[in-house]
Amino acid sequence: MPLKRFDRPVILGMVGDSASGKTTLARGVARILGEDRVAAIRTDDYHRYSRAERKENGLSALDPRANYMDIIEQHLELLSQGKPILKPVYDHEKGELAAPEYVAPKPFIIVEGLLGYSSKEMRDCYDVKVYLEPDEDLRIDWKIQRDTVERGYTKDQVLASLDKRRSLSPAHIHPQRAFADIVVQFKRPAGHAEERGAHLDVRHILRPTLPHPNLAPLVDASAKNELSLDLTRDEDGKPVDVLGLSGSLTDERAAALENLLWDLIPEAGHLRANVGEFRNADNESMVSHPLALSQLLIAYHMVKAALGIHVI
Amino acid sequence: MPLKRFDRPVILGMVGDSASGKTTLARGVARILGEDRVAAIRTDDYHRYSRAERKENGLSALDPRANYMDIIEQHLELLSQGKPILKPVYDHEKGELAAPEYVAPKPFIIVEGLLGYSSKEMRDCYDVKVYLEPDEDLRIDWKIQRDTVERGYTKDQVLASLDKRRSLSPAHIHPQRAFADIVVQFKRPAGHAEERGAHLDVRHILRPTLPHPNLAPLVDASAKNELSLDLTRDEDGKPVDVLGLSGSLTDERAAALENLLWDLIPEAGHLRANVGEFRNADNESMVSHPLALSQLLIAYHMVKAALGIHVI
Repeated sequence: MPLKRFDRPVILGMVGDSASGKTTLARGVARILGEDRVAAIRTDDYHRYSRAERKENGLSALDPRANYMDIIEQHLELLSQGKPILKPVYDHEKGELAAPEYVAPKPFIIVEGLLGYSSKEMRDCYDVKVYLEPDEDLRIDWKIQRDTVERGYTKDQVLASLDKRRSLSPAHIHPQRAFADIVVQFKRPAGHAEERGAHLDVRHILRPTLPHPNLAPLVDASAKNELSLDLTRDEDGKPVDVLGLSGSLTDERAAALENLLWDLIPEAGHLRANVGEFRNADNESMVSHPLALSQLLIAYHMVKAALGIHVI
Repeated sequence: MPLKRFDRPVILGMVGDSASGKTTLARGVARILGEDRVAAIRTDDYHRYSRAERKENGLSALDPRANYMDIIEQHLELLSQGKPILKPVYDHEKGELAAPEYVAPKPFIIVEGLLGYSSKEMRDCYDVKVYLEPDEDLRIDWKIQRDTVERGYTKDQVLASLDKRRSLSPAHIHPQRAFADIVVQFKRPAGHAEERGAHLDVRHILRPTLPHPNLAPLVDASAKNELSLDLTRDEDGKPVDVLGLSGSLTDERAAALENLLWDLIPEAGHLRANVGEFRNADNESMVSHPLALSQLLIAYHMVKAALGIHVI
């Protein structure tokens, strides 16, 4: 179904530490929403300094002072008003700033990055705010894999970088967790120390800042231990729901659960597509059911928000 | 006197065809206002395509379709609200787009370029709008000089480019003349076919869209033919004042006239500096009295506008 009209876009935030899975999750959501109707923004493009300059001035790329924070805020505001931006570009491979690129307004915008919830002005621009918080061991594995394969670093360089950032993440990244509507936690199932993809367990901390779907039918329909929904206290003591999904789910059960989740957003049936895809350590395309569930849950909120604004 | 405070900047527009003298005039005004209190924006930086891309798609750099027109408009609006921008950069020497640069708000902003008055939204952002319209022979001389010396073109290439643009300037550049508060016309004095700098005559068409200073004392104090102020009809039939200055003015008389013009803006006495400087064909620094008068007249309006907003 073609886009009818839109007054302003629906904006999804995807914040988390380096290599926490932001791009993989964002891509899956974009595929559900329809890639031609999504503009993807990465706040890494707002780095103020090249890699060489950062080496000289000693600032980490995740230090707000090493980023055009006020321009991120300004561009978020412009996008939320349905206006175009001329977005800067950081070339991760070369470690250099490049010519900017024009980003036209689209019905959906996904903003992923390290510092996307740093100010109230930024946070007010989002319709849905996600924070990614994989187990630290898992994140380190992911970071080594990505930075050595895609960004030309050696493993020792990645480990040194992780070490250097150990105090910066608690100062600048972690505090943003408090502002998310959904916190997504991937972790290895007990006894699977090598697992990094298809069979990870996932927990979703659902804050009451968004009208989450009624998940009871989903949980009732699932086999024991496959899916759980628990009322609990978050680490800050606040009441939350925690939606858990086991990585050991079979393909059949996963398909049945996905059907049920799709049924919760009948308005978006035409958006249905393959979800849950990711690239493994050998850069092969794989499917993860927990990842699919995360993507669907986020897409559900994007579609609901869009229905309040425009016909999708 | 240091800057006290400012709520929004005073914005000067400097529009005209290629090589019409925009940069020289803008630099002089910036020097009067104090270079550290001026942000200079060149709309050439908003070219959408590199030189190689334009060669391929056949679009001239002065075609609006070859420029991020909506982003020029957006950035003008942001600057007029005292907000920073991340300005794109076009490298004239390489003919390529480069990494953008951060432009912080300043008390004065000078925006020069080919297409700065293209939309009402743009025009509404300026406090003072200048249009440069040198005699065409003079402009061609200036363009050949600049493009061969500074931009690495051959004379034949410049002439070919001028030829190609002959239909584009009337379509896109010239119509903007109608929106200027001041039209500045440099021309060779009769019988000086080679003159291109210090001894040019200049005419200022003063539209009643700005409260021009009382120039009568200046004209009365001048010798015959040095300075003139005439009520006349512009080429569109509308009433205007035309302030003319002869290039044959002596240094002593010029100094006296400059003193008189400075006396009209006593609030800005502390801004006084050497004005009228330009670079000749041998790239030597020279002084032109007609140029100095143009710069002072424009600076007068900038200072007056600033006094309505902030203490300078």
